[in-house]
Amino acid sequence: MAMKQTTNIAMKSSMSSALTFSISATSRECGARLGRVQTLHGHFDTPAFMPVGTRASIKGILPELVRQTGSQILLNNTYHLLLRPGPELVRTMGGVHRFMNWNGPILTDSGGYQAYSLADGNAVDDDGVTFRSHVDGSMVRLTPERAIEVQNMLGPDIMMAFDDCPPSARAADQPAPDDDSQDGAARPRASTDPRLAAAVRRDARKGVYDHEKRLEIANERTVRWLERCKRAHQRADEQSLFGIVQGGTDLARRSWCVERIANIDLPGYAIGGVAVGESPQDIARVVRHTAPLLPADRPRYLMGVGYERDLLEAVRAGVDMFDCVLPTRNGRNASAFTRLGQIRLRNAKYAEDQGPIEAGCDCHACDPGRYGWETPGGAPFTRGYIRHLFMVEEMLGPILVTLHNLRHFQRFMADVRSVVGSDDWTGLVARWPVAAAPSA
Amino acid sequence: MAMKQTTNIAMKSSMSSALTFSISATSRECGARLGRVQTLHGHFDTPAFMPVGTRASIKGILPELVRQTGSQILLNNTYHLLLRPGPELVRTMGGVHRFMNWNGPILTDSGGYQAYSLADGNAVDDDGVTFRSHVDGSMVRLTPERAIEVQNMLGPDIMMAFDDCPPSARAADQPAPDDDSQDGAARPRASTDPRLAAAVRRDARKGVYDHEKRLEIANERTVRWLERCKRAHQRADEQSLFGIVQGGTDLARRSWCVERIANIDLPGYAIGGVAVGESPQDIARVVRHTAPLLPADRPRYLMGVGYERDLLEAVRAGVDMFDCVLPTRNGRNASAFTRLGQIRLRNAKYAEDQGPIEAGCDCHACDPGRYGWETPGGAPFTRGYIRHLFMVEEMLGPILVTLHNLRHFQRFMADVRSVVGSDDWTGLVARWPVAAAPSA
Repeated sequence: MAMKQTTNIAMKSSMSSALTFSISATSRECGARLGRVQTLHGHFDTPAFMPVGTRASIKGILPELVRQTGSQILLNNTYHLLLRPGPELVRTMGGVHRFMNWNGPILTDSGGYQAYSLADGNAVDDDGVTFRSHVDGSMVRLTPERAIEVQNMLGPDIMMAFDDCPPSARAADQPAPDDDSQDGAARPRASTDPRLAAAVRRDARKGVYDHEKRLEIANERTVRWLERCKRAHQRADEQSLFGIVQGGTDLARRSWCVERIANIDLPGYAIGGVAVGESPQDIARVVRHTAPLLPADRPRYLMGVGYERDLLEAVRAGVDMFDCVLPTRNGRNASAFTRLGQIRLRNAKYAEDQGPIEAGCDCHACDPGRYGWETPGGAPFTRGYIRHLFMVEEMLGPILVTLHNLRHFQRFMADVRSVVGSDDWTGLVARWPVAAAPSA
Repeated sequence: MAMKQTTNIAMKSSMSSALTFSISATSRECGARLGRVQTLHGHFDTPAFMPVGTRASIKGILPELVRQTGSQILLNNTYHLLLRPGPELVRTMGGVHRFMNWNGPILTDSGGYQAYSLADGNAVDDDGVTFRSHVDGSMVRLTPERAIEVQNMLGPDIMMAFDDCPPSARAADQPAPDDDSQDGAARPRASTDPRLAAAVRRDARKGVYDHEKRLEIANERTVRWLERCKRAHQRADEQSLFGIVQGGTDLARRSWCVERIANIDLPGYAIGGVAVGESPQDIARVVRHTAPLLPADRPRYLMGVGYERDLLEAVRAGVDMFDCVLPTRNGRNASAFTRLGQIRLRNAKYAEDQGPIEAGCDCHACDPGRYGWETPGGAPFTRGYIRHLFMVEEMLGPILVTLHNLRHFQRFMADVRSVVGSDDWTGLVARWPVAAAPSA
């Protein structure tokens, strides 16, 4: 019933002139779609993975090298750019594309999630959030109107609604997670932000936190704030505003939110609040429930997810866009993604290893010749050398592993796109064991 | 007389099979020579500037991008590689070229200079130097034999003799220098290593330091140690050992040392001990005196120098090779070299500057299109964006300015090479005002 409803909603809406979404193939056995999103700054193929360039830079990676990994669209964080260098400066410099010299589409989040999870002294109310700047200690106010104004100044192709993203119930209970990569084994899990979890635990210790109440309030606010965001949006002919569905892990709340959010005509919709501490099982359950409810002719974006297995689950549920810090953040910490899971390149066993990070990989580190790079005998950067770079804290270590990890995710997504038409999901998982569902 | 002597010495010597040096043009009005050094790992054109890759990495710069700046030969530091990852590991990994994936010539220093200036608890005696490792606190011993053994294991094309490099008289007297770059003004000076100066001041405070005595001892040791280095060298068919002339700023001592050093038949010779705290005037005086005394048919290498003006002075005195940390170290600190002098990109006046670091520069940052890089409208990375990167401590800031600075030095050296045949030194300095001699 919900499915039918949202389809009707989709039918009566019109696309923004700044964004077109075309679907070229759909799965016969699941919700997966192969598509392309066209923006005023170029296109990206879907399902798409967006690297995260928090401060208008993918840490340590020149934009041209990011492009060469197969990345077509980047994400920047409004919260960070709001504080430094400020949206007025970015506008003066010609907008965020010109500012960071990225010749392709860019998406920004709304800043709300970071304002809640990163800032001290934050306070959410019905009108917005007030937080203390981690840069200069000043109090900063974000409202739906201000979040849109800031994103209108930054100038991304896709801007996200200002929502109220409550933490997961799980984040309030569990200890801060360790780094969750495991050498030689694939152990996908939610990419819990430890700072968000810490904020929730602080609230819980103070005894002020009622999770169910918080979810209900957040859901209602998210809908009201989206209406305000749309009214405030000044550049709909150039920038596409996406709405965000909240509702935690309560499927009824998700349905409630989708009905209201999808009733507001927008060029795309996102599923929020699933990368804030949930188990992979909960993520999958929420996404399988929510994605099909969203308008079928609009791109669907799952925010902040995730590991390969999470991505595959979500693609099969009908999601088209993803972002995650995993390839970049883990890369800077010497953790390299492979088809069999992550490996920790600081491990002493790699000290004399003359092999590439992953045999058969075509990234800059594993196959520099593919990029026209001259190396002795066309050899790869070895695990042994990369380990050395990390042990002596040379920047080139994080750079090489980040390049590898970005290429890993983009190769995986390209392979995902290649099987949507044929539905050879078994073959896909055979090539990417890391993406297999866990054994029961 | 000294000139005649050394020329005779050169005539009776033979070149190493691992290195050939051909001179294609010489100046009619000064000592400058245009040449090429061929090694088993490729050639480099002289006069040549070598970037410094201390730990087998040019900090933050992929080897292919280093190559694209016009760099043809790199320097690695034996002291650092001795401590981490150790020469045995580098040998196991196929030698330093393969280890760092640099497809061109590499030169290593001997480790002596760093052992003296960086290590705590160091003690020089007639047989070598003992120092405490800054990595694990263990005591490490370097002798001429060990320095050569280590370099034989590392496998560079050119290896340096283990010398006794005393600090300058000036280093003992003056305070540690501030960062010596000046916004908008060219103020070349010696690239004093503040750690070396500090070590000297410690000795001076203890009242144990007699500079003249120290110079005399160092000079004699340097000659004796060179003989031991040559005897210890096991791979003369693959690696070329260069001798080093010491003698401080005392020209008679320099002559004394040259006579003895040049009497030992080697494929190249270096002038050491002039980047340890001297004034530009002292550097020029020593180099003008010493370079012409060295064998004319061997490459002459001025160690650790320097600013553009110092390089030009030395080229005109007959020097063929240089290394210096200035482009990389200053680049990491937001100081960009231009034809008119260094500019500090953290300066607030650049916040909204949409121009490149330097108009007309063809580096990766100023003219990314030259390298086939896609940017919006082929635009440069702007001063404003680069300032932002430094203000928020993004790695890409040091990367972009390092690339610019390396290209600046390589463009300068290419222009220097272009005028050796024509002797249009006036035109060169008109194009590079930063290289002009200071007004009297």
